[in-house]
Amino acid sequence: MPSLKLLKHMKFPKIKEFHITPIAVVDPPLLNAAGLHAPYALRTVVELVTEDNISGVSEIPGNIDIDKALERSRPLIIGQDPFQINKIRDILLAEFGTEKPADRGFTPWDQRTVVHVFSSIEVACLDIIGKIVNRPVVDLLGGKRRDAVPFSAYLFYKYEGAGGELEFRTDPNATGWAAARQASALNPAEIVAQAKAMCKEFGFQSIKLKGGVFEPRQEVDAILALHEAFGPSVPLRIDPNALWTVETSIKYGKEMEGIIEYLEDPCRGQENMAAVRKALKTPLATNMCTTSFGDIPRSVQLGSEDIILSDHHFWGGLQESMKLTSICETFGRDLSMHSNSHLGISLAAMVHLGAAIPNFKYALDTHYPWQSDEIILGGRMKFEDGAVPVPSGPGLGVELDRAALAKLHENYKKCGLTKRNDEIEMQKVQPDWKFIATRW
Amino acid sequence: MPSLKLLKHMKFPKIKEFHITPIAVVDPPLLNAAGLHAPYALRTVVELVTEDNISGVSEIPGNIDIDKALERSRPLIIGQDPFQINKIRDILLAEFGTEKPADRGFTPWDQRTVVHVFSSIEVACLDIIGKIVNRPVVDLLGGKRRDAVPFSAYLFYKYEGAGGELEFRTDPNATGWAAARQASALNPAEIVAQAKAMCKEFGFQSIKLKGGVFEPRQEVDAILALHEAFGPSVPLRIDPNALWTVETSIKYGKEMEGIIEYLEDPCRGQENMAAVRKALKTPLATNMCTTSFGDIPRSVQLGSEDIILSDHHFWGGLQESMKLTSICETFGRDLSMHSNSHLGISLAAMVHLGAAIPNFKYALDTHYPWQSDEIILGGRMKFEDGAVPVPSGPGLGVELDRAALAKLHENYKKCGLTKRNDEIEMQKVQPDWKFIATRW
Repeated sequence: MPSLKLLKHMKFPKIKEFHITPIAVVDPPLLNAAGLHAPYALRTVVELVTEDNISGVSEIPGNIDIDKALERSRPLIIGQDPFQINKIRDILLAEFGTEKPADRGFTPWDQRTVVHVFSSIEVACLDIIGKIVNRPVVDLLGGKRRDAVPFSAYLFYKYEGAGGELEFRTDPNATGWAAARQASALNPAEIVAQAKAMCKEFGFQSIKLKGGVFEPRQEVDAILALHEAFGPSVPLRIDPNALWTVETSIKYGKEMEGIIEYLEDPCRGQENMAAVRKALKTPLATNMCTTSFGDIPRSVQLGSEDIILSDHHFWGGLQESMKLTSICETFGRDLSMHSNSHLGISLAAMVHLGAAIPNFKYALDTHYPWQSDEIILGGRMKFEDGAVPVPSGPGLGVELDRAALAKLHENYKKCGLTKRNDEIEMQKVQPDWKFIATRW
Repeated sequence: MPSLKLLKHMKFPKIKEFHITPIAVVDPPLLNAAGLHAPYALRTVVELVTEDNISGVSEIPGNIDIDKALERSRPLIIGQDPFQINKIRDILLAEFGTEKPADRGFTPWDQRTVVHVFSSIEVACLDIIGKIVNRPVVDLLGGKRRDAVPFSAYLFYKYEGAGGELEFRTDPNATGWAAARQASALNPAEIVAQAKAMCKEFGFQSIKLKGGVFEPRQEVDAILALHEAFGPSVPLRIDPNALWTVETSIKYGKEMEGIIEYLEDPCRGQENMAAVRKALKTPLATNMCTTSFGDIPRSVQLGSEDIILSDHHFWGGLQESMKLTSICETFGRDLSMHSNSHLGISLAAMVHLGAAIPNFKYALDTHYPWQSDEIILGGRMKFEDGAVPVPSGPGLGVELDRAALAKLHENYKKCGLTKRNDEIEMQKVQPDWKFIATRW
């Protein structure tokens, strides 16, 4: 029998505090199509607190412009009920407007404001809701389809160096993966060594190489060397970050046919992707060519990709990502996940989402092994056989380590970085280096 | 500060009871493309009860085959956590398999098993979740975008009669809408009289005519008469239930251009709808040609419809309907709602969903004015200016009236009906009548 006492007057505590904390996280000198990672990766931690002192947190890529947009959204969000996520989204769209595909920018990371602001607020609201209802966030997404979420090893070409204060120097006391993480990786042999160390530490069972750094021959040779070293049972991927021409994509795509499980953003634009896709049997994945709901109709029309690499920071949060999942299911696409340098709050959110999605076929991307800092109580999250067990606590299942957060906020203030610019970092090493949207 | 006490051991009460109650609801002799409504409309009420005695309810179209499928699903559902809706969906898909578009059938109502079974369980689970977390179901769909949900007057050609035991006779003591509801409506003048009585009673501000009963000229004349009687400020719609040819659809569609806000399923099949759509400026709506996620890609490719008339009973529940909403938003379609004869549990679910969807442009369909029974405490739900205020209690915000439910279950046992068959009912009046899939 339903209990009528449940029909009591409902008190809905509102959001009373909205904290925005930019942090700088030690990051090694990783190379990519846009240049070089700075010694610190920037993240912004958002914390919402309700009138009854329930706190919800989230983490997004750091950028002073987005921090300012978060500040601008604060008075709009204070006083809102965290359950009213539709209303919050509508408020933010009214304030910031919708964004165009062009706002995505050319870089491997996303430049758009509304999706970052809304994602950070949505995840923090879901964290709050989970705590209120005493359930993990995955249960707010329909519930778990798996107990642990597999990730892929994410290899980077890199200069020698540990990042942070050490920059291009190394910590002589480092051991294990922390030592391997400092090593240079500028050729196929060093990439294989990096892969072995990373897989040993985390147990990853698939491997991705961030390409777009060297001319394609060298990067494809690295893939062939990985294939040789790990054998056919370890799925491989390569991501040239849209730097290849259609011709180059097809040429090297054909060479890697049967060796890679997917080819990620070999070239720029849906039309070019569609042309490559027609020429190859290997599935194509994207987080650069189809990056918003507005891009989906054209992607479907052209058949430009097989796999959408979602990123809840760029698609408007976890619920919107579930909707993207449905679109992928409806149109016969697969869904996996993109990543940027991140800490445990983002990882937890990715794991909750990854546990809820149907037809999980491709292990998710994560930069997490490259970071050593952490801002959650209990320290760095653990991988088991390359997978992260779904946190079982209420909400995201992570709690802020406020001392660690304060320390990384101090790093932010000291390091002088306010937004990511890999081209400037690269020019510190190679003064004449310039980002080129289509290089080979 | 987050409260660590929230990180207590979580007990997740499981579903321990699964009640399936077929009921028969008094229904007047309404005419439609498939024939004639029986004196009783069948519904099945599903109630799930958790180990801690939280009850969740739902209501679906009644059909003995679906009742049997519900029985078959009972042992699979008992012991499940009501929050694990993804898992429950996967279990049911594994048990019953996926369905093909053909399983939808030719009739104006839907014949598919899995979507009915899953919808009933999903809505009952959301009702439970809402009660557990002390929130209305709309807050489990992202929260309210409006405080009341507008519905459209739903006109039917009909024989004189009140339905139920009275069948084709009328209750001489009836007054107001209850009296008007008994009257015959077999020509444009009677349709206008029906519309006036219904709009007066419920305050509807848009009007739909169920067509597919008489030859198109008469039905279009009824639309013209409604336009004359209500003026251009009242949006009109007509639904021939796919009985017209493409040529007829275009001919009469053109005649009604500027008079109707949309033309619903004039003809059968996405290809035919696309041909009509190309010829008309009036938007096309469907609940017969694009009726499942599997139908969406072809609908998008052909551009066969502008408006999907969702029905949470046929699309897999409220969360799946929200995903359909996202697909509509992504592909520039609108979403409104289809209805069959129903009571307050279905109405409440429709209202929660209607309150959450974005870009609400078209008032929803409901048969509710045609029913007089009710199975929820407090009796029939109230309309205000044609809209239903969103229930504010936890869950669906309705509670079963168990005495009323028992009475309508007795009706079910007495009436001898086990599934809807409007053709047989029509043949009782016109023995040589046959359903024809494309009539005019």
